Amino acid sequence: MKIAVLGTGSVGDTIGSKLVELGHSVMMGSRTADNEKAKAFTGKHNGKASAGTFADATAFGELIFNCTAGGGSLEALKLAGEDNLKGKVIIDLANSLDFSKGMPPTLSVVNTTSLAEEIQKAFPAAKVVKALNTMWCGLMVNPGMVNGGDHSTFICGNDEGAKAQVKDLLKTFGWQEKNILDLGDITAARGTEMYLTLWLRIYGATKNGAFNIKIVS
Amino acid sequence: MKIAVLGTGSVGDTIGSKLVELGHSVMMGSRTADNEKAKAFTGKHNGKASAGTFADATAFGELIFNCTAGGGSLEALKLAGEDNLKGKVIIDLANSLDFSKGMPPTLSVVNTTSLAEEIQKAFPAAKVVKALNTMWCGLMVNPGMVNGGDHSTFICGNDEGAKAQVKDLLKTFGWQEKNILDLGDITAARGTEMYLTLWLRIYGATKNGAFNIKIVS
Repeated sequence: MKIAVLGTGSVGDTIGSKLVELGHSVMMGSRTADNEKAKAFTGKHNGKASAGTFADATAFGELIFNCTAGGGSLEALKLAGEDNLKGKVIIDLANSLDFSKGMPPTLSVVNTTSLAEEIQKAFPAAKVVKALNTMWCGLMVNPGMVNGGDHSTFICGNDEGAKAQVKDLLKTFGWQEKNILDLGDITAARGTEMYLTLWLRIYGATKNGAFNIKIVS
Repeated sequence: MKIAVLGTGSVGDTIGSKLVELGHSVMMGSRTADNEKAKAFTGKHNGKASAGTFADATAFGELIFNCTAGGGSLEALKLAGEDNLKGKVIIDLANSLDFSKGMPPTLSVVNTTSLAEEIQKAFPAAKVVKALNTMWCGLMVNPGMVNGGDHSTFICGNDEGAKAQVKDLLKTFGWQEKNILDLGDITAARGTEMYLTLWLRIYGATKNGAFNIKIVS
């Protein structure tokens, strides 16, 4: 399908590359149409991906991946355009990391709300699904890298059909159905976003970002 | 050893009972010396445990478990008395859950600080170690209940000796050394406390509190 990947950082590049590999038509969106990283991305995918502004990519995509840095996500989505987002699924991978108070970062949106909720509020006609924001991007598209792919990932959102679509997409990334836990409505993003602060501490202690958590019961 | 368990709820009862079983001398502390739950606790342990005020228990204990509700922990520790806490290890199991904004709860101390940090600041002569606050109390003292005991727990604090002591104690609870991850200084409690919001969502989705996370890499 036609998919917009908003954001040209390592998350956007990793997600976009996996989507191309899976046969999707990918357009990478950024603030400007001539973004160097987007050019590198389309260059390496040699005709199988394109690039444009946030608005170009969002108009193109039937499905939107928000891979922008959390602090800039709302602004990026405004530039993408409310009309371009209408009725579409936004898979929100971002975390509102705030580096202004030192390391490790705090969250700029936290506790009584979450970035995903703020996006859903700002774009009520879109269908926001929070997903994959609890790990390093390499694992997002290659869960088999650790523990034979047997570890946990979370989705949440207000639209059941959108969540079902995201779940199917995650399975094409290699996620096992039993390990994709639906946490409920979009307010559950508070939990997965706040977990990032633990993720950062585990990463700090182990110096290894290629880890995930597996729920055991 | 002589251990104070502050708090008479299910966490205090569970931790206190395990400590008695392990042969420790336990005194349960609460706001009043004649707390009914504390009486029930000492009653069932039949001479192997005692009860008193927060100050009584803290004066008695060489090691202090904070099992009070997070919203009341600082007040409880003030009642315990700064002098009684001096030089002692406080194992802080509490989470600052705030139920006033509806369910699931938010955190009253969050993001740029944590309950454990606030306790450490309020009692600089004590040695605060955050531990075990990331799971249901039944699992704290019986990790073997799930996945053959193979799952993760976290400690953090500013005093290396205190952390080593807590690690040894956790091993007597059944925790495997490889699964006790030292996250660093007490600021890492932000991570383990904020994880609670994800814990609550997982619990809400699965209706099963007897779970934990295992780090896989």
